[in-house]
Amino acid sequence: MHIKIVLIEKVKEKSYLYKIKKYLDWLSKDAKIEIITFKKSKLNNQLKKIRGLKKNNFFCIFLSENGKNFDSNSFSKFIFNCQHKIVFIMGGPDGYPKDLLNQADFTLSLSKMTIPHGMATLVLIEQIYRAFSIKKGSKYHRD
Amino acid sequence: MHIKIVLIEKVKEKSYLYKIKKYLDWLSKDAKIEIITFKKSKLNNQLKKIRGLKKNNFFCIFLSENGKNFDSNSFSKFIFNCQHKIVFIMGGPDGYPKDLLNQADFTLSLSKMTIPHGMATLVLIEQIYRAFSIKKGSKYHRD
Repeated sequence: MHIKIVLIEKVKEKSYLYKIKKYLDWLSKDAKIEIITFKKSKLNNQLKKIRGLKKNNFFCIFLSENGKNFDSNSFSKFIFNCQHKIVFIMGGPDGYPKDLLNQADFTLSLSKMTIPHGMATLVLIEQIYRAFSIKKGSKYHRD
Repeated sequence: MHIKIVLIEKVKEKSYLYKIKKYLDWLSKDAKIEIITFKKSKLNNQLKKIRGLKKNNFFCIFLSENGKNFDSNSFSKFIFNCQHKIVFIMGGPDGYPKDLLNQADFTLSLSKMTIPHGMATLVLIEQIYRAFSIKKGSKYHRD
């Protein structure tokens, strides 16, 4: 599986970055996974990049509090039933411009609660790691 | 308000402890707040402590994936409509023994997804901080 995580805004907190890197390292044994930060590129450039990913057969999942809530088992089934290439897009504190959100193939919620950007990135990558653990039947996830 | 967070299991990750302490410091300006770890005390001792808190007028909220999901605004209203004293109880990776769970006045879910103990403790304390920010109308929470 090929997974990209696109951050509209950079994660600044070192303590989160440290843990995010750990999960990335663990995941890299089972998937091609990378984090891309859009930084402060203009909306048109962001749109162009997202459209490029879609043309390149990436299934485009936007993170939003108003998206679909899965439990971890259902999330695991969902991503393994998805296309082989997935991109998760994580907005900044102001959400997404409408033109960008229109590109979503799916909208996913980690929680109904508003979780700050860096923390949400950490929760997302841990869930992706958990999804792989569930698929493999490892002991990491306990029902 | 007087808030206690009871951890059935210790948070070990230094990167989480660092951020948890930050939120505790910020919250301590608005509330009496403390974290208590039960460590590996026996179930009978845990039960005795929880019963003691309830006798002392603490409203007892257990964290569980199967509990009620709030958005952050509703969570803020909920805790400010609660009793003046609240205790949040956060189980370990194996959940709670039934006898302990029977003491719950309310069961709260941060997410349908299974979030590891240390990370969930961090998400909880950030939500409590956010609840106070919403109540005060500060800029921390953006709708």
